[in-house]
Amino acid sequence: MAFDLKRRLAAEALGTAILVATVVGSGIMADRLSDDVAVSLLGNTMPTGAILVVLISILGPISGAHFNPAVTMVFAARREIEATAAVLYILAQAVGGIAGTLIAHAMFDLPLFQVSETVRTGTGQWIAEAVATFGLVLTILAGLRFRADAIPWLVGLYITAAYWFTASTSFANPAVAVARAFSNTFSGIRPTDVPGFIVAEVVGALVATAVVGWMFAERNTAVSPITVKEAE
Amino acid sequence: MAFDLKRRLAAEALGTAILVATVVGSGIMADRLSDDVAVSLLGNTMPTGAILVVLISILGPISGAHFNPAVTMVFAARREIEATAAVLYILAQAVGGIAGTLIAHAMFDLPLFQVSETVRTGTGQWIAEAVATFGLVLTILAGLRFRADAIPWLVGLYITAAYWFTASTSFANPAVAVARAFSNTFSGIRPTDVPGFIVAEVVGALVATAVVGWMFAERNTAVSPITVKEAE
Amino acid sequence: MAFDLKRRLAAEALGTAILVATVVGSGIMADRLSDDVAVSLLGNTMPTGAILVVLISILGPISGAHFNPAVTMVFAARREIEATAAVLYILAQAVGGIAGTLIAHAMFDLPLFQVSETVRTGTGQWIAEAVATFGLVLTILAGLRFRADAIPWLVGLYITAAYWFTASTSFANPAVAVARAFSNTFSGIRPTDVPGFIVAEVVGALVATAVVGWMFAERNTAVSPITVKEAE
Amino acid sequence: MAFDLKRRLAAEALGTAILVATVVGSGIMADRLSDDVAVSLLGNTMPTGAILVVLISILGPISGAHFNPAVTMVFAARREIEATAAVLYILAQAVGGIAGTLIAHAMFDLPLFQVSETVRTGTGQWIAEAVATFGLVLTILAGLRFRADAIPWLVGLYITAAYWFTASTSFANPAVAVARAFSNTFSGIRPTDVPGFIVAEVVGALVATAVVGWMFAERNTAVSPITVKEAE
Repeated sequence: MAFDLKRRLAAEALGTAILVATVVGSGIMADRLSDDVAVSLLGNTMPTGAILVVLISILGPISGAHFNPAVTMVFAARREIEATAAVLYILAQAVGGIAGTLIAHAMFDLPLFQVSETVRTGTGQWIAEAVATFGLVLTILAGLRFRADAIPWLVGLYITAAYWFTASTSFANPAVAVARAFSNTFSGIRPTDVPGFIVAEVVGALVATAVVGWMFAERNTAVSPITVKEAE
Repeated sequence: MAFDLKRRLAAEALGTAILVATVVGSGIMADRLSDDVAVSLLGNTMPTGAILVVLISILGPISGAHFNPAVTMVFAARREIEATAAVLYILAQAVGGIAGTLIAHAMFDLPLFQVSETVRTGTGQWIAEAVATFGLVLTILAGLRFRADAIPWLVGLYITAAYWFTASTSFANPAVAVARAFSNTFSGIRPTDVPGFIVAEVVGALVATAVVGWMFAERNTAVSPITVKEAE
Repeated sequence: MAFDLKRRLAAEALGTAILVATVVGSGIMADRLSDDVAVSLLGNTMPTGAILVVLISILGPISGAHFNPAVTMVFAARREIEATAAVLYILAQAVGGIAGTLIAHAMFDLPLFQVSETVRTGTGQWIAEAVATFGLVLTILAGLRFRADAIPWLVGLYITAAYWFTASTSFANPAVAVARAFSNTFSGIRPTDVPGFIVAEVVGALVATAVVGWMFAERNTAVSPITVKEAE
Repeated sequence: MAFDLKRRLAAEALGTAILVATVVGSGIMADRLSDDVAVSLLGNTMPTGAILVVLISILGPISGAHFNPAVTMVFAARREIEATAAVLYILAQAVGGIAGTLIAHAMFDLPLFQVSETVRTGTGQWIAEAVATFGLVLTILAGLRFRADAIPWLVGLYITAAYWFTASTSFANPAVAVARAFSNTFSGIRPTDVPGFIVAEVVGALVATAVVGWMFAERNTAVSPITVKEAE
């Protein structure tokens, strides 16, 4: 890693801020402009998928572009990031995410500080968040293994799909969930519903880590690294 | 192939499950949110195309990412997969597909077990399914030949187009057709209409295999492999 | 060129057929499903852009994937295709295009043979077609020069844009224009309006060829090929 | 740089013309076809994002594909373009942009010369333009550093997102802002509101340049170029 921790944390905060500003801002824009909720969701999905490709491409080389405590947790569990750095990453993501919400509000001339009243709870929503985060972590871990260069695209496309195929529109990110609790707009979530989302997200991330650990183990686990490399 | 059959089957089941969960789930979401059926179809198309790029990228290196009995059948006919493995692939796809439907229903708080009442039959629909599967197999075989690295994109984009240019919205996949029969939602198909779709899909796949076999034979079939390679 | 003329012509016919089936078919689908013409045009644009990426990727290595008499004409003018082959290419495109219209009609249970009544004429439309084809030829020639591997994407994206920024929705293709005259649906064009479109398209293609010829000449035209290569 | 200044200026003018013709033209098309403003904005966004990928791919190798005085200014500040050339670039962009507006009007049979009456002013709009241009310059500078080949995609996707997440629909370009003042259509801006936009854009560009200057400085700034290269 060529960049020091200070810059890596700045990249995590900046990236999460732009990500959340995009989610919240495009939600406000889309909701204002249409009476058709599916059209609004299209106007919310496309920018989110697009900005993810951009942010992971440009900030990934600095911090790894997690922008997501569930992802940082997975990398910590796999010992691909040190524990202290992981905690600081998560703090940077939380701060950045909330800043993103404020920036979105400022751009749209809305009160900076808000509390969402949008109910997002129940078994279906929790299953959806677990599925959404399972798929996200699967995409990241398998993508890193097989198509590392395509990771920005794979994550952007995965979230594009997950906005629609999960009943929760796929938060899949505890920092983003917290940040969205501070916006009483299209993409908001009632604060009391955030813990349920976070628990579901962590469960999905853990299951994905386990599945990937099994599925990507190759046939002859005893072969030398060189042979494995050739077989890939 | 570095992965054992067990993992390959798991990849086929998991991939088909996520694919069907996306098709069915985004169909439910899109249908709920809009009264404009074209908007709903946009909200069904985009996630399906996007998830295909992701799934083929991340699971292709394990199982080949067929997720589709018609595709497995084509590879078996071309002796690129053993017959036994092919049968097991198809079973894994069927089981995974149905699981995907159940997951979608669970996320959207719908009864898990349903039977579709959506009529999809008639000459136009069958021609459409044959055309759709013809194009899919053409895309896969020609893509593997000329742009193997781009296969995930080509399949995702092909299906994005085929959702709209075929009258049947391009099932093009017997396992997905069966799985969609178990969902009485936007993307469902009446069980009695499934056999017609499957026959049409197999016909389209066979015609594509024949066309590709002829069209991709190069001028001097007698030249040595080295010369052919240079000419490419 | 590793493929014989017969296969190249077959690729041109097949590619143009699928292209036109996509344009006409998705137009029918989109028009049926929505009362909002912009939504219908989205449902017509996305499949067209997507299928172009696919078709150019998979058939380009066989025939060059012109699918368009204006493009073939440009390559003939640049002596990159022999005159006889060019004439046969154009015939194959015309036949393929009309076949594509018939296939679309068959899929949607419409009368196979139709004549469009959609008026598309006037100065604005002709300027639009000239601009559209200018941009298309610029994209192809400059793309081949600088980013040959990305050509399928560049053409698909260019047409995605041109559907919307030109007043004519960018036919930009004489064979497709003729084929669309045989469909009295969303994407049709009145036969009497076709000649005006073709003239405008040829003008746009010629202007682009001239502009590219000038703009891409490098500073020191007298330098040796090796130096030029290094400078690129 | 293998191309002389004349050709580079022509590329800047041509690229900005096509970019503005796309923004203005697709705005007219989308606005005419739909009563749902979000649908119109989708029909404005998608073409703009798509044409940016094309234009940067095909003209980037000639002029660098700035098409934007704020971007040219940033490169001048970083001494990556000579001051005289920078001034001429900006003139070419302005002329090209206005020509693009006229071309769009000609295609849509509208009066060539118009003055926009669309009010776009106020703190929220200015913050939005500063944020939009900050993100654009961040994308360009970081993209050039880490993923130069992907720059056309990154810029296209960034603008796709920024159309929606900024309250101003992300002009992020003084030449485009000026050109859009000459069109009293969907994408227009009242001339008196242009200076505010330009100031905000310049501020955003400067802040991004500073942030990038700090964030991308690697840990050991004293290491030799070779070591830095290896570390990347």
